[in-house]
Amino acid sequence: MIYLDYAASTPLPKAILETMIPWFCEDFGNPSSSHYQGRKAAKAVERAREIIADKIGAYPSEIVFTSGATESNNLALKGIALARRDKGRHIITSSIEHKCILSICNYLENEGFEITYVEPNKYGEITSASISKVIRDDTIIVSISHVNNELGTTQPIREIGALCFDKGVLFHTDAAQSFCKLDINVDDMYIDLMSVSAHKCYGPKGIGALYIRDLRETKVDPVIHGAGQELGLRGGTLASPLIIGMGEAVSQSGLYIDQVAIGEVRSAFLNELGKYCSYTINGGVSVIPNILNITIQKLDIQSLMRDEELAISQGSACSSMAIDISHVLRAIGLSFEQGEKTLRISLGYGYTPQKAKAAAATLAKHIS
Amino acid sequence: MIYLDYAASTPLPKAILETMIPWFCEDFGNPSSSHYQGRKAAKAVERAREIIADKIGAYPSEIVFTSGATESNNLALKGIALARRDKGRHIITSSIEHKCILSICNYLENEGFEITYVEPNKYGEITSASISKVIRDDTIIVSISHVNNELGTTQPIREIGALCFDKGVLFHTDAAQSFCKLDINVDDMYIDLMSVSAHKCYGPKGIGALYIRDLRETKVDPVIHGAGQELGLRGGTLASPLIIGMGEAVSQSGLYIDQVAIGEVRSAFLNELGKYCSYTINGGVSVIPNILNITIQKLDIQSLMRDEELAISQGSACSSMAIDISHVLRAIGLSFEQGEKTLRISLGYGYTPQKAKAAAATLAKHIS
Ligand SMILES: Cc1ncc(COP(=O)(O)O)c(C=O)c1O
Ligand SMILES: Cc1ncc(COP(=O)(O)O)c(C=O)c1O
Repeated sequence: MIYLDYAASTPLPKAILETMIPWFCEDFGNPSSSHYQGRKAAKAVERAREIIADKIGAYPSEIVFTSGATESNNLALKGIALARRDKGRHIITSSIEHKCILSICNYLENEGFEITYVEPNKYGEITSASISKVIRDDTIIVSISHVNNELGTTQPIREIGALCFDKGVLFHTDAAQSFCKLDINVDDMYIDLMSVSAHKCYGPKGIGALYIRDLRETKVDPVIHGAGQELGLRGGTLASPLIIGMGEAVSQSGLYIDQVAIGEVRSAFLNELGKYCSYTINGGVSVIPNILNITIQKLDIQSLMRDEELAISQGSACSSMAIDISHVLRAIGLSFEQGEKTLRISLGYGYTPQKAKAAAATLAKHIS
Repeated sequence: MIYLDYAASTPLPKAILETMIPWFCEDFGNPSSSHYQGRKAAKAVERAREIIADKIGAYPSEIVFTSGATESNNLALKGIALARRDKGRHIITSSIEHKCILSICNYLENEGFEITYVEPNKYGEITSASISKVIRDDTIIVSISHVNNELGTTQPIREIGALCFDKGVLFHTDAAQSFCKLDINVDDMYIDLMSVSAHKCYGPKGIGALYIRDLRETKVDPVIHGAGQELGLRGGTLASPLIIGMGEAVSQSGLYIDQVAIGEVRSAFLNELGKYCSYTINGGVSVIPNILNITIQKLDIQSLMRDEELAISQGSACSSMAIDISHVLRAIGLSFEQGEKTLRISLGYGYTPQKAKAAAATLAKHIS
């Protein structure tokens, strides 16, 4: 089994699982309960919140736990837009965002907001100049993902953030693909809201977080109304084992994520593949080393899809049930035929250059 | 440590945890991925969906996974109300619903809906007659919880459901406290939507489900917009280990939940407590055996709260950070002073009559 889809989801290391087990089985109190069992769980939740806040240069009081990056994106965009609809109804995002952002924006359009979808250049980059051109007095929020999940392209979010700051517009970034992989400091990068997910960085599935600058002073509407948890912003019993697992994954991320080493793995993969075929790499020069978006003209995609040994994503992982070419590949100018021959290979923990070479050789079996 | 707060949250039995581990650590593919790893996870998710559907006499295609009962309640009420606002804007619920329902209804009021809050009788019962009186031509949905989480009162939901069916109004029930404890058949009980949560019945925290009758033909707006998961109704990577754990908890629920045995535990507890003090039991005759809402005049609540040995909920678990008397106790006519002396004791797996006797004796230490 050759898994090359770490951008879709990562395994939970046993060491991280171990830290979660007591909170599932023994210290299972509801963190909202005022008795000892509840307070114990609440304390561990707050410790995880601190770890996550520290990782991005934020305060723990600025972190809201959610079920994942999708929910975080919903809370960020709907939460801000609906709370500020009297201030303005214009939102800027890009045409290559994750499908959930596009789906949220579509909903907001129906609610009377106007969305501008900035186009990337052919490398998949969203320049701050392109945002600058469309920013308006009634723009309330700009949302651009830090790293594109299909291409791996890292966006110039510090520049975009600085621009938004200058214009007095809130800046949200979906950092599902960059969190724990690239250095992020929300102050340096002028980030006002940021979505992250645990299962993209060796934490458990079903948990994520949203950073909201000055949360206590910021008006945000909840998406999930509840019994007052998370300052009233996100209802539901706090999933303490998952939150604690996410905290552990973040604090141990150095053990599982090494982007320099992954860069070597990537090179080894490409070198080996080059022996069998020619290819084009999509996404420009600023791609993150663990994501490789590649078009292989001679790829026999039918044969690859039948191969139960190889787990690779065609187009976007989260929408790979779709049969059309992905909206991202289309936006950077790929034709349907090129899109069909395009793979997103994503690398992760456990890969050595040697193993990557073997993976490339296996993939090469599907090159005609 | 004496845990008497199973209605707030239950432990995850090791045997259920074991079934989840492979899906965390080895078969961790994203269930939306079309490769083998993804399809394997998706298949296990579908198996869990079947188990949950079977448990309530529904079709698997009528189950949507969520992060818990709070989110399910949000999806049920907002999803239906917002999708049907042209059909009518009147909603009926009760004044003793879980706080998340009240918070959702408050939001819907701000969105232009009119909510009628039916009052319980002094036993905490919501009669179908009280619903019948307020149902109108523009009523779109009635939402009454199956078992009240503070009192344990079981509501006559079959009658309420039949009434709604007659009137052509949708009926939603929050079954967080009854799922796997009472027999539920959505057809027999005329239930159109039903919220359930895993961590109330020995499954993991952070996962739940919503049953929606004829989901494919029913117009429901999503609460979390995503990349098309769950028929577009609930975005976010499916948390396969949690879903599978929920399925296991449901299929093994007979091992951990025995309401007859718990009835004996309850009696033993009350017998023993009666040796130390007099008390009143709130919630009428139709209370579920595992929940005991009790007012003890001579209770020294300060002393009890300092006791780190005893985990008991005062008022509602999910809102126990609040210092006011709970809205439920107020609705059944308790004074502030009575409310202060009222406990929700909830029993669960591992309790024997013997152990319950010991727990009552420990509680009695706080009776003056
Ligand atoms: C950029 C981006 N945003 C959001 C998501 C959704 O994350 P989650 O599965 O945690 O909801 C993903 C992954 O699917 C992603 O890559
Ligand atoms: C009746 C009822 N509804 C909803 C909830 C919320 O459940 P969850 O924590 O799964 O969101 C609870 C428990 O807190 C409950 O007792």
